[in-house]
Amino acid sequence: MADPHPLPGAVIDARPLGAALATAKTAVLAKTATIEIIRLVVLAGKIIPEHQAKGDITVHCLEGRVDFVVGPITRRLEAGLLLFVPQGERHAVHGIDDASLLVTIMLR
Amino acid sequence: MADPHPLPGAVIDARPLGAALATAKTAVLAKTATIEIIRLVVLAGKIIPEHQAKGDITVHCLEGRVDFVVGPITRRLEAGLLLFVPQGERHAVHGIDDASLLVTIMLR
Repeated sequence: MADPHPLPGAVIDARPLGAALATAKTAVLAKTATIEIIRLVVLAGKIIPEHQAKGDITVHCLEGRVDFVVGPITRRLEAGLLLFVPQGERHAVHGIDDASLLVTIMLR
Repeated sequence: MADPHPLPGAVIDARPLGAALATAKTAVLAKTATIEIIRLVVLAGKIIPEHQAKGDITVHCLEGRVDFVVGPITRRLEAGLLLFVPQGERHAVHGIDDASLLVTIMLR
């Protein structure tokens, strides 16, 4: 994981990684007492099993495609699409193409 | 303002508006008891005077460029760059190019 940027007010780079995505690692981009911002790398074929986050989250697809699974419902995310998931709602992620997701966790 | 999408779990479209940006209006994309997600349209030359938000916010530039001003510090945002602003921190926005910003307000 990269060191989180200093906060508040620092500019955080969440641009698509493009060709660098294939060898990129998930990284914490910023973290304070109230928020954590992560770039989650999900390569094609990767499955993140069902889990729950430690707060409300938004999941914003920056590049590539994933399937986002909540219970019986699967939603396809591609670049520019996002979801809100309330705290405690269990979810899983399946990589369709190599993808990166901006995950913002609200730590109340 | 467009009607907010039903939540949670609905897919929210935050893709760049492209040519449609010039005539687009700021819109609430989603709203719950704990979060509000807005697409803020800031056209070139527009100045949003100093104000404060009703919670912690992230400001994610989706397209175009703005200058984001906090006190004596000005930061240039372009597509893919974002900032975190704690509740109570006064800030202003100046449109450099026609731009849209994804603003996520955490209502604790």
